[in-house]
Amino acid sequence: MPAPPRTFLQGPKGTRDFYPPDMAVRRHIESVWRGVSVRHGFEEIDGPTFEHLDLYTVKSGPGIVSEIFSFRRAGGDRDYALRPEFTPTLARMFAAQAGALPRPTRWFMIGPFFRAERPQRGRLREHVQWNVDVIGDATPAADAEVVAAAVAALERLGLTPRDVRVRASDRRAAAGVLRRCGVAEDHLTDAFEVLDRRDRTPPQEFARRCADLSLDAAAFDAATEAARGVWSGSWAACGPEFEPARELGALLAEAAVSEWCDFDLGVVRGLAYYSGSVFEVHEAGGRERAIAGGGRYDNLVELVGGPPTPAVGIAMGDVVIRLVLEERGLLEPPQRYQPRPDAFLIAADDEAQRSLPAIAARLRRAGLHVRHGPRGARNVGRLLGQASRAGARFAVILGEELRRDSVVVRDLDAATQREVAAADLVAVLGSPA
Amino acid sequence: MPAPPRTFLQGPKGTRDFYPPDMAVRRHIESVWRGVSVRHGFEEIDGPTFEHLDLYTVKSGPGIVSEIFSFRRAGGDRDYALRPEFTPTLARMFAAQAGALPRPTRWFMIGPFFRAERPQRGRLREHVQWNVDVIGDATPAADAEVVAAAVAALERLGLTPRDVRVRASDRRAAAGVLRRCGVAEDHLTDAFEVLDRRDRTPPQEFARRCADLSLDAAAFDAATEAARGVWSGSWAACGPEFEPARELGALLAEAAVSEWCDFDLGVVRGLAYYSGSVFEVHEAGGRERAIAGGGRYDNLVELVGGPPTPAVGIAMGDVVIRLVLEERGLLEPPQRYQPRPDAFLIAADDEAQRSLPAIAARLRRAGLHVRHGPRGARNVGRLLGQASRAGARFAVILGEELRRDSVVVRDLDAATQREVAAADLVAVLGSPA
Repeated sequence: MPAPPRTFLQGPKGTRDFYPPDMAVRRHIESVWRGVSVRHGFEEIDGPTFEHLDLYTVKSGPGIVSEIFSFRRAGGDRDYALRPEFTPTLARMFAAQAGALPRPTRWFMIGPFFRAERPQRGRLREHVQWNVDVIGDATPAADAEVVAAAVAALERLGLTPRDVRVRASDRRAAAGVLRRCGVAEDHLTDAFEVLDRRDRTPPQEFARRCADLSLDAAAFDAATEAARGVWSGSWAACGPEFEPARELGALLAEAAVSEWCDFDLGVVRGLAYYSGSVFEVHEAGGRERAIAGGGRYDNLVELVGGPPTPAVGIAMGDVVIRLVLEERGLLEPPQRYQPRPDAFLIAADDEAQRSLPAIAARLRRAGLHVRHGPRGARNVGRLLGQASRAGARFAVILGEELRRDSVVVRDLDAATQREVAAADLVAVLGSPA
Repeated sequence: MPAPPRTFLQGPKGTRDFYPPDMAVRRHIESVWRGVSVRHGFEEIDGPTFEHLDLYTVKSGPGIVSEIFSFRRAGGDRDYALRPEFTPTLARMFAAQAGALPRPTRWFMIGPFFRAERPQRGRLREHVQWNVDVIGDATPAADAEVVAAAVAALERLGLTPRDVRVRASDRRAAAGVLRRCGVAEDHLTDAFEVLDRRDRTPPQEFARRCADLSLDAAAFDAATEAARGVWSGSWAACGPEFEPARELGALLAEAAVSEWCDFDLGVVRGLAYYSGSVFEVHEAGGRERAIAGGGRYDNLVELVGGPPTPAVGIAMGDVVIRLVLEERGLLEPPQRYQPRPDAFLIAADDEAQRSLPAIAARLRRAGLHVRHGPRGARNVGRLLGQASRAGARFAVILGEELRRDSVVVRDLDAATQREVAAADLVAVLGSPA
């Protein structure tokens, strides 16, 4: 038989294989997301991993549609898409049950998302993303709630306002400024897209695009600089279109997260459906891609068939946050995130081996985390080494003491051991370390 | 604007929207799977949600390949597949790191899987599946370990050996019997497939297929009936090809799970890569599709490019098990699986509302699960009703007592209330209910 092609050993480009240490770190991040969501009163939901393609083409905009993995079932007549983001699914789910759901509804979800673009640092074809959304509340209080949840997760992961910054803006305010900078009403969406891609656009190309839209970039930049003072009241020139942004600033202060946040008119986000506030979380040095992003999408629920419903949300992926945590030394060694075995069972002889599975079953049924060596292994010294490397709290040595219904329990932290009646094993192993 | 097409409100056929109550039940099942896996010494992994299509075409067999959602990136040259099962990914991951991984390696995973077939009861296009596998152990002890883990999950979910049965067989034993029933060596794989589809094949069609393979179905059925006694020793006619099955029976007894298991030569499983034992878990009445299935696949790691490596695993989906738990009344009302709020904050006046977000932030930072009413709501009676419906342990009423840095804490279970210093709030709310 010819050797199989080497490619069998590799998953698709831009995807990840999570071996236990990597998986433990991923679960650590996910458990922070979940814990924060629950404490902040969000309820967990999920939708399908793939949707009808037209759910995304309807409104997400070209920025995301060009990156979608789409497919059709053999013999089928509908196009599907691996979900590139959660908001359209969430809008669809709210719309479908709008009559029965409270306002506001607070939802969160954690799951896989997909982009068909070229993989690069901080950007993969599959990643895990956390979404928190408040649906049915048009006030900036809802915006402040999702920002507060994102900040709580950053803080719980060990980051500080010196490490990461939440940059907040508002498309209503930005639209007002863009109009004053020369942009016609029907070019506003294009202008947002040009501004969103600014960092990835060569300067000459950016200038050309601004010219196409009659956008005076220098005037916009000057307004952006001045508008940094909108929360502190040091900028008086702003018009009424800055009112929601101003209110958000006050509410972020009430929620005690102001020190994490800056107002930055230059943040516009790439998705076409944002209608109000927009957020982006960045590593303070600006070296990495965005850690999180979000904003208000007051038209999306209606657009997919529901009643007019204001909504706002924020999403954080696992890729950039992990890079940032690694850079700052904020991740423990992976084994700290892995569950520690309570007991490692060792059979000193063949007769003991025959009793081992039933003893393991009894301990596990009592809720204990139990491991054991290979069935044929009898070298107690080597097995004790294996027990230590597995991080077990106790080694339980099954040997001739079994004849009097006892076993030897070795405390691997204290390096002490004693004989214990088999009947007392659950109590002894289950006691706090 | 014309009304948007109604289809926006519905996800793809055969997929599910998980609203909070459904999600809570799903998390309950997943947490039983995870808990059992950890207690049994399995470590969590995950792979990509999509793989190169040829990872499946290489060996899974036509039974699964015809059901794959496959796709290609626009402008790309590789075919991808939404994963229909986990074993090929697991084999690929083990093969890629075989030199660095212990033998045996015990892995588990929980994640979404996909089948492009017609949705029907117990069978959807997307479901969540739990996999437990032991890699690098050729002995039936490994087979017994994965069966014991599956049984532990069934038991933890509230099922008993009267509700569900593990049917175990062995393809080596079945092959021996098939040879004696007239099947030629190069027709064995076809014969397994015909037997696997027997329940879904009209009798005449089944008879025709058996005739094509020279399979004497009556003789096979007679052997199946006799072989039920192989574990109890009541069947002496079995040849050496029954030795692993016999050993497995003894090991299942050692692991104290015999009363859940039957030996049934009629179970062969549809996947082409099974090479030894095979398992299927069924509702005892036989009304539902299989709850779980698995077996030994000693050639798959090598086939995808790794060293020769024996392996065995079992997988359980969330769809059939949920139907069975529902039928038997073994699911609590969903809210029992949802996290209970520690506190529901109520602002009795506008001034209190301005203090609410900071108080909520402080309590959440201390680890408490905190909810609150809409920002503008001031009707304390109605808000207390909302707090009760949310299942909160305490309502915290912020009112004029704030002037002396106090709040009113109402124990919603005991229906008692008292004034508490704001500084003591974390301690009071954090105390066990």
